[in-house]
Amino acid sequence: MTFDKNTNILIVGLGVIGGGYAAALTRAGFSVSAITKDRETVDYALRHGLVRYATTEIDEDLIKNANFIIFALYPTVFIEWVEKYQHLFSPGTLITDVTGVKGSVVDRVQSFLRYDVEFIAHHPMAGRERSGVEYSDPEVFVGANLIITPTEKNTREAVEVIRELGKILGFLRITELSAKEHDEMIAFLSQLTHCIAVCLMTCKEDENLVAYTGDSFRDLTRIAKINEKMWSELFLMNKDALLAEMNRFIEEFNGMKNMIEADDRTALMEKMKYSAEKRALFDKPKKRD
Amino acid sequence: MTFDKNTNILIVGLGVIGGGYAAALTRAGFSVSAITKDRETVDYALRHGLVRYATTEIDEDLIKNANFIIFALYPTVFIEWVEKYQHLFSPGTLITDVTGVKGSVVDRVQSFLRYDVEFIAHHPMAGRERSGVEYSDPEVFVGANLIITPTEKNTREAVEVIRELGKILGFLRITELSAKEHDEMIAFLSQLTHCIAVCLMTCKEDENLVAYTGDSFRDLTRIAKINEKMWSELFLMNKDALLAEMNRFIEEFNGMKNMIEADDRTALMEKMKYSAEKRALFDKPKKRD
Repeated sequence: MTFDKNTNILIVGLGVIGGGYAAALTRAGFSVSAITKDRETVDYALRHGLVRYATTEIDEDLIKNANFIIFALYPTVFIEWVEKYQHLFSPGTLITDVTGVKGSVVDRVQSFLRYDVEFIAHHPMAGRERSGVEYSDPEVFVGANLIITPTEKNTREAVEVIRELGKILGFLRITELSAKEHDEMIAFLSQLTHCIAVCLMTCKEDENLVAYTGDSFRDLTRIAKINEKMWSELFLMNKDALLAEMNRFIEEFNGMKNMIEADDRTALMEKMKYSAEKRALFDKPKKRD
Repeated sequence: MTFDKNTNILIVGLGVIGGGYAAALTRAGFSVSAITKDRETVDYALRHGLVRYATTEIDEDLIKNANFIIFALYPTVFIEWVEKYQHLFSPGTLITDVTGVKGSVVDRVQSFLRYDVEFIAHHPMAGRERSGVEYSDPEVFVGANLIITPTEKNTREAVEVIRELGKILGFLRITELSAKEHDEMIAFLSQLTHCIAVCLMTCKEDENLVAYTGDSFRDLTRIAKINEKMWSELFLMNKDALLAEMNRFIEEFNGMKNMIEADDRTALMEKMKYSAEKRALFDKPKKRD
């Protein structure tokens, strides 16, 4: 497949990510259509010009006509969808997904996929703490990171299509990892942080907290406004890697507790100094609100 | 003391908080002078019109002439300063501080303070992860929370002055707590969150993290860019309360780990749902950059 303005792009699942992809690609002059679950989402997407066409139906002609299909569904729903409807793909179609775990998705889908269709997985490291097309925003991808997780079954051309897609969406760093490396990275950077935010939010009952909070607590719990259906699925699909990162964090946290218990100000200051230096590397190049 | 446009306000310590107070009060039409450690800070403050006058000297006339003195120093430095120079205060002067721990500060200062000077403590729940007057910004207080920690030695008038100060600076919720309640609250909302951010930042060595990070990790580690001198002091001055909150968090975090280990999706979803509902209450009324 070549990826240009003649490519018929189909997005399956117009949630906050699918909707953002649709908006950005349409704005860039591509022809984008969509299949999504709810009628209201279709109406919203058409009303706001996110796509040229959208439907809640498994529209056979639409699927056949697509050269490039982007699945923005929950991992389990994505796998089921492909199993059920892959007979509708045209030969040579390239499919990709945006799901946040890869180890239990990529091999699985590639193992049952038709030989004349290619699946290349990627993960946009951006999003919103809200779900639904009405929160989608093509700007969240600008300056963000994108990870492609090719396997030995993938062609170089497919990787290049995703790189091109990433550039169009405005991603800054586009990198390749194995599914296993990706899942370890995500367990640390994304899943562990969500676990921490949720626990911080739920561990103390005090109705006055709101009146006393500062920005630190707000920052650390922004992602505690979590989509429980999606994240519980992601956590359990990446259980081993996540548990390893949770244990790593607990060990570090207990180490810091020991310093405080021992009144070891020197060790505390050293640790904080290292933390501050390291954090400076993570500032985002582009400012966002 | 009455607090109006005739009040001579002296700010001791033009850091990121002292500088912000100075800027906001000057902008509101008050007469503000300052004593601060470094010559460059004085120059900056005068050049940017944050104060009408500033000096690095212990200027006796300036101190005598002040009706209202705001100390924006590290807790230990504040205590030493008052011990050393309180003979320079005029009778009837009101002094306040902005330090982030109160239990080991308020009683201590009130115990040795002259009978004819009143010390009322408060804590602005706002700040920047950077230090220094050049990062000060009067806007950080707008919409934020302010806690006053009066004791039985304080007058109602002094509390009202701090309330008035808070309103001028733009704080949204102004509340009163005992020093002990304040320190417990701060241990949870501010100190625990800083411990978490630091540990998240330091627990994994991987030079590629930057290339793969998303906003979640950035959000949870923003405050890991920490001033090690100030925060190690604050942690150790509030050690018991902080350790209690660290233990509370570890217990909750281990509970979540158990749910994941047990593949208990129902319990995970329930916890996340509760987290999301609770977090919705914490959104800040006013939008900031």
